[in-house]
Amino acid sequence: MAILPIDSGRYGTREMLAVFGEQRRIDCQVRVEGAAAAAQGELGIIPRAAAREIARVARAGRITARRVAALERTTAHDTAALVQAISEKCAAHARPWVHYGLTSNDLVDTATSMQMRDALAIVQPRAARLALALARRARQYRRLPAVGRTHGQHASIIPFGLKFANWAAEVAGHVERLEAAGPRVLLCKTLGVVGTGSLMGAQAVRVQARVAERLGLSPVAAATQVIPRERHAEYVFCLSLLGATLEKVAVEVRNLQRTEIGEVSEGFRRGQMGSSAVPVKRNPTKSERVTSLARLLRSGVGVTLENVALWHERDLSNSANERFVLPTTAILADEMVVAMTGVIDGLAVDTARVAKNLEATRGQVYAEFVLDALIKKGVPRMEAYRDVQRVAFAASAAGTDFAAAVTSDAAISSRLSAAEVAAVFTPERRLGAAPAIIDSVCRSVARVAARH
Amino acid sequence: MAILPIDSGRYGTREMLAVFGEQRRIDCQVRVEGAAAAAQGELGIIPRAAAREIARVARAGRITARRVAALERTTAHDTAALVQAISEKCAAHARPWVHYGLTSNDLVDTATSMQMRDALAIVQPRAARLALALARRARQYRRLPAVGRTHGQHASIIPFGLKFANWAAEVAGHVERLEAAGPRVLLCKTLGVVGTGSLMGAQAVRVQARVAERLGLSPVAAATQVIPRERHAEYVFCLSLLGATLEKVAVEVRNLQRTEIGEVSEGFRRGQMGSSAVPVKRNPTKSERVTSLARLLRSGVGVTLENVALWHERDLSNSANERFVLPTTAILADEMVVAMTGVIDGLAVDTARVAKNLEATRGQVYAEFVLDALIKKGVPRMEAYRDVQRVAFAASAAGTDFAAAVTSDAAISSRLSAAEVAAVFTPERRLGAAPAIIDSVCRSVARVAARH
Amino acid sequence: MAILPIDSGRYGTREMLAVFGEQRRIDCQVRVEGAAAAAQGELGIIPRAAAREIARVARAGRITARRVAALERTTAHDTAALVQAISEKCAAHARPWVHYGLTSNDLVDTATSMQMRDALAIVQPRAARLALALARRARQYRRLPAVGRTHGQHASIIPFGLKFANWAAEVAGHVERLEAAGPRVLLCKTLGVVGTGSLMGAQAVRVQARVAERLGLSPVAAATQVIPRERHAEYVFCLSLLGATLEKVAVEVRNLQRTEIGEVSEGFRRGQMGSSAVPVKRNPTKSERVTSLARLLRSGVGVTLENVALWHERDLSNSANERFVLPTTAILADEMVVAMTGVIDGLAVDTARVAKNLEATRGQVYAEFVLDALIKKGVPRMEAYRDVQRVAFAASAAGTDFAAAVTSDAAISSRLSAAEVAAVFTPERRLGAAPAIIDSVCRSVARVAARH
Amino acid sequence: MAILPIDSGRYGTREMLAVFGEQRRIDCQVRVEGAAAAAQGELGIIPRAAAREIARVARAGRITARRVAALERTTAHDTAALVQAISEKCAAHARPWVHYGLTSNDLVDTATSMQMRDALAIVQPRAARLALALARRARQYRRLPAVGRTHGQHASIIPFGLKFANWAAEVAGHVERLEAAGPRVLLCKTLGVVGTGSLMGAQAVRVQARVAERLGLSPVAAATQVIPRERHAEYVFCLSLLGATLEKVAVEVRNLQRTEIGEVSEGFRRGQMGSSAVPVKRNPTKSERVTSLARLLRSGVGVTLENVALWHERDLSNSANERFVLPTTAILADEMVVAMTGVIDGLAVDTARVAKNLEATRGQVYAEFVLDALIKKGVPRMEAYRDVQRVAFAASAAGTDFAAAVTSDAAISSRLSAAEVAAVFTPERRLGAAPAIIDSVCRSVARVAARH
Repeated sequence: MAILPIDSGRYGTREMLAVFGEQRRIDCQVRVEGAAAAAQGELGIIPRAAAREIARVARAGRITARRVAALERTTAHDTAALVQAISEKCAAHARPWVHYGLTSNDLVDTATSMQMRDALAIVQPRAARLALALARRARQYRRLPAVGRTHGQHASIIPFGLKFANWAAEVAGHVERLEAAGPRVLLCKTLGVVGTGSLMGAQAVRVQARVAERLGLSPVAAATQVIPRERHAEYVFCLSLLGATLEKVAVEVRNLQRTEIGEVSEGFRRGQMGSSAVPVKRNPTKSERVTSLARLLRSGVGVTLENVALWHERDLSNSANERFVLPTTAILADEMVVAMTGVIDGLAVDTARVAKNLEATRGQVYAEFVLDALIKKGVPRMEAYRDVQRVAFAASAAGTDFAAAVTSDAAISSRLSAAEVAAVFTPERRLGAAPAIIDSVCRSVARVAARH
Repeated sequence: MAILPIDSGRYGTREMLAVFGEQRRIDCQVRVEGAAAAAQGELGIIPRAAAREIARVARAGRITARRVAALERTTAHDTAALVQAISEKCAAHARPWVHYGLTSNDLVDTATSMQMRDALAIVQPRAARLALALARRARQYRRLPAVGRTHGQHASIIPFGLKFANWAAEVAGHVERLEAAGPRVLLCKTLGVVGTGSLMGAQAVRVQARVAERLGLSPVAAATQVIPRERHAEYVFCLSLLGATLEKVAVEVRNLQRTEIGEVSEGFRRGQMGSSAVPVKRNPTKSERVTSLARLLRSGVGVTLENVALWHERDLSNSANERFVLPTTAILADEMVVAMTGVIDGLAVDTARVAKNLEATRGQVYAEFVLDALIKKGVPRMEAYRDVQRVAFAASAAGTDFAAAVTSDAAISSRLSAAEVAAVFTPERRLGAAPAIIDSVCRSVARVAARH
Repeated sequence: MAILPIDSGRYGTREMLAVFGEQRRIDCQVRVEGAAAAAQGELGIIPRAAAREIARVARAGRITARRVAALERTTAHDTAALVQAISEKCAAHARPWVHYGLTSNDLVDTATSMQMRDALAIVQPRAARLALALARRARQYRRLPAVGRTHGQHASIIPFGLKFANWAAEVAGHVERLEAAGPRVLLCKTLGVVGTGSLMGAQAVRVQARVAERLGLSPVAAATQVIPRERHAEYVFCLSLLGATLEKVAVEVRNLQRTEIGEVSEGFRRGQMGSSAVPVKRNPTKSERVTSLARLLRSGVGVTLENVALWHERDLSNSANERFVLPTTAILADEMVVAMTGVIDGLAVDTARVAKNLEATRGQVYAEFVLDALIKKGVPRMEAYRDVQRVAFAASAAGTDFAAAVTSDAAISSRLSAAEVAAVFTPERRLGAAPAIIDSVCRSVARVAARH
Repeated sequence: MAILPIDSGRYGTREMLAVFGEQRRIDCQVRVEGAAAAAQGELGIIPRAAAREIARVARAGRITARRVAALERTTAHDTAALVQAISEKCAAHARPWVHYGLTSNDLVDTATSMQMRDALAIVQPRAARLALALARRARQYRRLPAVGRTHGQHASIIPFGLKFANWAAEVAGHVERLEAAGPRVLLCKTLGVVGTGSLMGAQAVRVQARVAERLGLSPVAAATQVIPRERHAEYVFCLSLLGATLEKVAVEVRNLQRTEIGEVSEGFRRGQMGSSAVPVKRNPTKSERVTSLARLLRSGVGVTLENVALWHERDLSNSANERFVLPTTAILADEMVVAMTGVIDGLAVDTARVAKNLEATRGQVYAEFVLDALIKKGVPRMEAYRDVQRVAFAASAAGTDFAAAVTSDAAISSRLSAAEVAAVFTPERRLGAAPAIIDSVCRSVARVAARH
């Protein structure tokens, strides 16, 4: 049984785990060898027949991780083993030209880019689907008045759906950010030992461009032995930033699910055992898990930022930690997106409780609107503020209804009629531009999602 | 005398320090008030005459930080003080409409965006100039053969200029990344207490769009009381990532300036005292400082990522730490760009030492080229590798010249003529595609820089 | 007006700001010079009369930061300026012996240790006082039944004071941790340029020991030019860890002050303006600020960990960032301790609300005790669990009282008499060992605090 | 094949991996159950016979992870499955008393402490052995003059062994720090759902004390549902700090192994393939790996600091990330200690190169000693400094020997005889107190190591 919760199967979707499996890494490296040979053949750097043969073997996809591992036990060098595994499937004439002009790290870095590409190809549509799920909820609660809280205190009124619209916009923004980052971070590099393409001469750049195109990557503009690491930092950051937004959603679910608030709860599988102490207790465990993993995600950003300043034409100080950070970031970001999509889709919203909570302060959350109504009647702001404050504090101290207190206050009622006061205290009229904002966000989200 | 080295004047350019001064913050907030009033007047939300009057006062720019501070001592609320400071300069009819429909944080967040915008307006052209300076150096040493080092060991040959080309490409990439991030992170928000634009009704969104346009910002698509904090995280990350690249350059300068390497040294002001211990010692102190500050920059990224998950429609947990992180990040990133530009412009390159270092291994760095020459003669790769290795180890053990050893080795000399060996050991022929890569990078950098 | 909120006066107590002022730094460095001269005189390394003269000048404390700054403008070297400032106050015979055998960094690092020592001397007793304040609250609410929440859900019963006891124990633990770290991190180093005490020969170690004793520091066991930086990392970590506990307290205050919970609120200064939107709103702003600053504190830990691996006998890459991190960490940790002490001392606890919240689930939080009572009657655990769960879910669905439902359930009431059920549902009997734990914590805290 | 390089077998010693295996976790939890039952039996909380029976089953160690996993598939709760797995091995009379008064997290947290205890029991002696290995090297090169470098520049003279002594002292300090942290961080908690020991009443504290003693842990003074998380943060920090020191050693090895310096090299297994490009190239790959992993280690500190502020009596936000951070930190710290011990033990030191490098500046590194000799002759410091500087710059510019230049300089030679100059330039006399420092460190290290 495995130690870390990715290999133990606790976290990670099947699709994403596959991206980071050993066989996939070999497959990617073999594809780099094939694409490089093909390009070199086309450009006359190696014999065309050899190129065709190597490309054929690479396409056939019969190089197993098991075989490479076996060969590595004799060569004691992983790339040498891979080259040998390919060579032994090639006709003799092609063998000298396998891995021609490349260095080990050309395979390692470019294969990593392919895995990053595949990871984004999984995460982006899933994030887009999450944005759609959030947009759906935003529309669903587009006109449900709810309390807006600042500093944990009841402050004003929002449509409940505005929460979801905020998140939908933010998640769609992450999709766009990842789209924009793609061409910068998904790079192909086949420029050899120190980035000069030494053995291929001036044509090295053309080889790299063709390999990149074949692999769906961008060619690196300049390199040392390695692709510059600020790209990997950007990739890890973008996913960690997505994680931070998911954490924000998760923290809100946890807060709204508190016993004292009770506006939402994570879906609960029938027959699931809650707490052994309190049978009816339903814990927002998925959201808590997302909160926890977001902390881990962001811890990877600093690691990748430290990796940027490699010495000279490369050192190895990025290597060991990337073996952890790159797969973990992608696997957990994906896991978290899927988990939160499940939470949002299955979220039980107690609209009665939403309505009840809005009344918890007995009308005090309408204070800004009373103030506004007075100002519009021409009352100077500071005078109006003092009147509202006086009545609000008195109502609060007496535990009475603020609307009633406003109506019965001489100073205020001399300016506002009972009907005007009643209008102020009508929550549906206090939603401002929020329904329009929600609609606008939903349209944007749909546009982004349509691309995935 | 100040405690922290920004306020003590130790770090920070005059221009950038001005962006984060107290008066600038007030100016920005006043401009938000003016722009909001103007928009509200145009849309009929407040009386047009009031709008014009408020906009006039805001434009006049006579609201001093000193006056606001004085008023704050009585109001005990900074925004209330600002509003009063504006009001007291307005005609009476306009006073009730100052700050109409806004919440304090509309000013705070939008003014912060304006400062971030101004900070980027300083950093971007300076980074572009640094990229140009690097590109100049790349061209200057475009064909100067130098040793390429991996793992700190001599590995192969590069043109010395390739180092600079790598950095130039990377710094230009940062300029592009900042350009791309701008519309995402430089946001205007005037949607009031909980993001509904409550008092302005459906028109709140139009008000915000007009304010944004006036201020050179993008309107936020949706918000709570605050602009969502993942934007600030992206901003801080982008500048920290730039810092990581500057650190990479700085670490390379420090390494190349080592007594044992001596290929470069930071410019040394005439009469400057070096070390009291060793008078001739010249320390790469600017590069060391950049290295140090890069660590501080990246520490801010985690802080801003933690700030994303605010509770409900906002809590204040982002506020205090942003007062440190946002100015510090911009001020130090700028300081570092300027410092590294100075280092690069003034860098003394000892080309004789570069040439000498290339010979340090007595030709061993040409091994990959000997291998290649043999393969091209049809020698199977593994056989060729063993021959090269045997001769290399023998030459290394004997402390003799590798080229001579190759020439006198029976196995190898049976395949390669003396002339062919001599050609292999000609450094100018071993630069591969690097000159072309340098040219291509220089063109790209010029394109990016032309925009600033 | 200053940019960063330490120099602007926003954060930082007067006493702690003084520790990090420029004059204090000069004073510390002068004291190092005086102590070194005294020790060197005693050991015959420099003339005794010179030693006495230098020590006299150092004790007199008349070296002003202003004078040193003026001299620095001509010497362009801060330590040279300091040495000159001391020398010009000394009789001529002593002048050659000022700074004898020392390197600049002996002053810088040792003076920094003195500032760290003074910072701890401020923070430790204040943290001890906070622990006492928490212990007082723990005793005050030692037997007040309150709901215990896990996952944000009502789970069981605690005495309200247990929360404070947990924090008190934790804060007292921080005091002990700081005490233990002191001898490790408050180090004196006077071993010269590369840690050999070169000019003082074998006696260098004895000089250092005497200087350390005079300054209330520990001598470093071995050094390069600098005190090893893992010490500074430990110092910053210990204060950041204290900050994390303060954040925990702050987050709990914020949560308990929520409108929906309302068990506590931060003291509110009479006449203080709350929110402009909702006049009666009282925001836990101090606790929010502590939460925010805790994030900044912990960001410094990574910086100091990166500073450990300096090159060879030192590089300067720790220097610039320590100018920020070391003062900021101490100043903010102190600020936060003082703020939280104010919050705890002034905390308004609404005991009626505490009692009311305990009843929010209508008895469901007693479920574990009903289960226990059944097991003690010999009911097999799984059978008992199923009975309790069945009744709990039914009561929850019906919105009825769990105690009543238990009493009227045939299966359970056949085992437990009405009196037994009533005993189960008596909160004062459900506090377990908590009162004893509180007492024990209070005794421990008193012991720790008595040392400060 | 596994994804992360711990489960793939790439990193981690056999002993340490075993500590974090699934079976060990089960074993630990079973031992907690056994110890709790025994204590409860002794104190009369549960029947003595039941206690003996449960303790017997727990001791027998026959509860397999496989069986627990199988049961978990039906109970859907891991602790319930464990309790059932124990129960089914117990006589019927004991079954109701398994897990009595405990909550799941009592097992989880206490078992985690046991694993942390076992991890420290592995790391501490290994770190002590590393300190000894370093001390041996320090003694070995106790009088070998070597260049001391600051800012990457040759600065003065040290005995080569001083480098190792610095590290030895630092590593021994880590052993002591871990020893000191042990009682604080290795905690037992059996206080039930919300830390009151609810079902065990006042005796809960005595139960916990007895369980702690049986398990070699300290009882927690106060708790919520969980052991407070600042303890885990301290544990992770202490190991990360050890990692930072290992990184420091590793970076120095990498720097000293540079082609241009060549003072040391990592041991090279016979027949090991170096670089495919340069056959004689020997890369310091172990030290590079340690550098890389140190970055990962320190990234965990922030995660654990964020975990401190759990809500109320606990939330789950620490849980998922601790599954990564706690094992990874221990496994990699151990891996790194073992790797660096191998590096130090196998380190090839080229003493001829050490001697040669000391001469690289042709005597300039003796400047501080010439200065000192002049001052001791009564030359005023500034006059002496100017003379030394003048001669040094001239020698440097002319590329001549500094000793010769000093001897032939009129001003200096009028004060210092040729013999005196020769004495100054004798490296063995320039080691100051370093040999004594080395001896003192070796004695301290031996004392610390003797405890392990």
